[in-house]
Amino acid sequence: MTMTYAVAGAQSASQHPMSARLDAYVANNEFDRPTLIVDVDRVEEQFNALKAGLGRADIHYAVKANPALEIISRLVSLGSHFDAASRGEIEICLSQGARPETISFGNTIKRPADIAWAYNAGIRLFAADADEELEKIAEHAPGSDVYIRLIVEVSQADWPLTRKFGCDKDTAIRLLDVAKSLGLNPVGFSFHVGSQTRKAEMWEPSLDALAEIWHAGKAAGHDLTLLNIGGGFPAFYGEAIQAPTDYAAAVMEMINAKFGDVATIMAEPGRGMVAEAGVIACEVLLVSRKSDRDVHRWVYLSIGRFSGLAETEGEAIRYQFETPRDNDAMGPCIMAGPSCDSADVLYEKRPMPLPLTLKAGDRVLIRNTGAYTSTYSSVCFNGFPPLDVVCI
Amino acid sequence: MTMTYAVAGAQSASQHPMSARLDAYVANNEFDRPTLIVDVDRVEEQFNALKAGLGRADIHYAVKANPALEIISRLVSLGSHFDAASRGEIEICLSQGARPETISFGNTIKRPADIAWAYNAGIRLFAADADEELEKIAEHAPGSDVYIRLIVEVSQADWPLTRKFGCDKDTAIRLLDVAKSLGLNPVGFSFHVGSQTRKAEMWEPSLDALAEIWHAGKAAGHDLTLLNIGGGFPAFYGEAIQAPTDYAAAVMEMINAKFGDVATIMAEPGRGMVAEAGVIACEVLLVSRKSDRDVHRWVYLSIGRFSGLAETEGEAIRYQFETPRDNDAMGPCIMAGPSCDSADVLYEKRPMPLPLTLKAGDRVLIRNTGAYTSTYSSVCFNGFPPLDVVCI
Repeated sequence: MTMTYAVAGAQSASQHPMSARLDAYVANNEFDRPTLIVDVDRVEEQFNALKAGLGRADIHYAVKANPALEIISRLVSLGSHFDAASRGEIEICLSQGARPETISFGNTIKRPADIAWAYNAGIRLFAADADEELEKIAEHAPGSDVYIRLIVEVSQADWPLTRKFGCDKDTAIRLLDVAKSLGLNPVGFSFHVGSQTRKAEMWEPSLDALAEIWHAGKAAGHDLTLLNIGGGFPAFYGEAIQAPTDYAAAVMEMINAKFGDVATIMAEPGRGMVAEAGVIACEVLLVSRKSDRDVHRWVYLSIGRFSGLAETEGEAIRYQFETPRDNDAMGPCIMAGPSCDSADVLYEKRPMPLPLTLKAGDRVLIRNTGAYTSTYSSVCFNGFPPLDVVCI
Repeated sequence: MTMTYAVAGAQSASQHPMSARLDAYVANNEFDRPTLIVDVDRVEEQFNALKAGLGRADIHYAVKANPALEIISRLVSLGSHFDAASRGEIEICLSQGARPETISFGNTIKRPADIAWAYNAGIRLFAADADEELEKIAEHAPGSDVYIRLIVEVSQADWPLTRKFGCDKDTAIRLLDVAKSLGLNPVGFSFHVGSQTRKAEMWEPSLDALAEIWHAGKAAGHDLTLLNIGGGFPAFYGEAIQAPTDYAAAVMEMINAKFGDVATIMAEPGRGMVAEAGVIACEVLLVSRKSDRDVHRWVYLSIGRFSGLAETEGEAIRYQFETPRDNDAMGPCIMAGPSCDSADVLYEKRPMPLPLTLKAGDRVLIRNTGAYTSTYSSVCFNGFPPLDVVCI
């Protein structure tokens, strides 16, 4: 049975029962600057929900989604593994007690000195999608396990967003040979179905394409033991998503049917693990009209694209906003950040309905912002401090 | 007479005589992570060159372009004034000895607490473009001077980029009245001609539109004494620009002709003050092809959109890259940053010619990156540290 979160209006996200702790904390505290509050218990619930569906697959939390120490520490205690993008992220995981054998160095673009450092720290699993990357790994992490990242182009995703990482089928199978000839242990493949894949059924075409390459690799004589299905696990941003256990179980069912007996399966949820565990508290700085004839108001928040809301680029992610005046009549608003940068506009092509009574000083909550916010924040653009983070 | 910098090839920027100090420093040092090196003497030369053309206009350096303490300190010693976007930037200026009466709080989106703080610190000149902003200023900085920011829409610039700041003519003149009724001192107008306006003649249509509003304001009985012409002063990114003294003198000549006797003229160069004083040293992390059939190589650098090169968004600014192999044959490359983010691509629509022999570990210099790089850098996206800054 598939359960979806219902969406009835602007406040539906706040009705989600698991956000009650966040609501209470936000209601009882003042914040002097934009602040992300993360409910670590909610992360634990999500880990358990995903794990219940993923079964024997190892969860490698994508640390880049939110590297807060409290999150990493909790996930270590739950038995999570980790997908790290850099030496910095590996250091965070180790500092919270993660064992090196549970950490994969999943960035296909690694600095040689960082590979050597990771190898010395005990990391033995690395991603690659190119000859030169395998050469670096062979030199600085000799004998390690490597998986080859694939481009699986069956979705309607934009070309540039899917091609930065991975290589095509022929190159991938050739790279397995290259890895072996360099003394590495080529154990399998990884791919990425696409960020925010809202329903399990959307995985099927990608998994079919992946299975074809997987079986071709085996037919070419490679003893493939690791299938890394990457991320793509969704968070609720206003459009219905499938509940995590059902979602993960449905993906695993497809994998079992298409791939048969694979020794190790890895999944790398990031957004799907932590987004819904976080809420940003900020404030309205200004509401204005540019002209007496303007239909839209402009609403300027204390947070913008360069202080935490980078994923509004191209209006890609449409966050859920809550204000104390949401029972008042609504009108369309262009939303922007506080910096003197004309690119720091959040929503303009599709204006956001906000209360007509909204004014400077009003608190605004931005729901489900636990992933990909705090780390995108700039160090001090326009002299504003980075997004503050509080874990509860 | 108008002098333009000639552009003959990829290395022309390095031939610019004023970058010799930077070249020597870069050649004699190793950098363990992407590093911006700023030649503060070069900033001083640029200040003097702009000042020679701007004459009696006050230069308010746009601190957001680069708030490095050494730059601010040098500009204080040269008699520069400052345009600050936030409390944080005002604090930086004051810490380097700037007098409060030389600092304008130029952001039209200010937090009430920051206005009050600035007023207590002695700041008496504020920007506004809306009723609510004037109300905040009147409450927290009573009696202060304010200037109204205008939208001047005569260029071919994209609509959203020109409309975040400012208001139309009728609103602006009404706001002068509002300011007066709130006990503030409405002294004039500001506008922005558009970033990277490469030649002085490109200012003329905007200045004509601005002059019409200016004279309408005076005709409405307002004693206007301050004209803030904003920024737009260009830096060299590969396309010819007019030399700074000639450029500034030509702009001032137009202003004198169109506006007559204005008591105070402010100019706010940021990019035009510091961009050419900086160079970023980084390295190639990977060169690859996604498929045997690919025409383009992918070149991954140790710096990307989230660690300093934010202005490559939409491929808006096309930086000049230098490598030790620039005498070798060239071929087209898609360029990307080191993060596991598919949006972290620098140039793809217009691939960049780079040496066919380029490989991981090669040093890459990115010219004229002294502005709008270090502060855009994220705190730790993907676990990478922010762009390092060294002032020489």
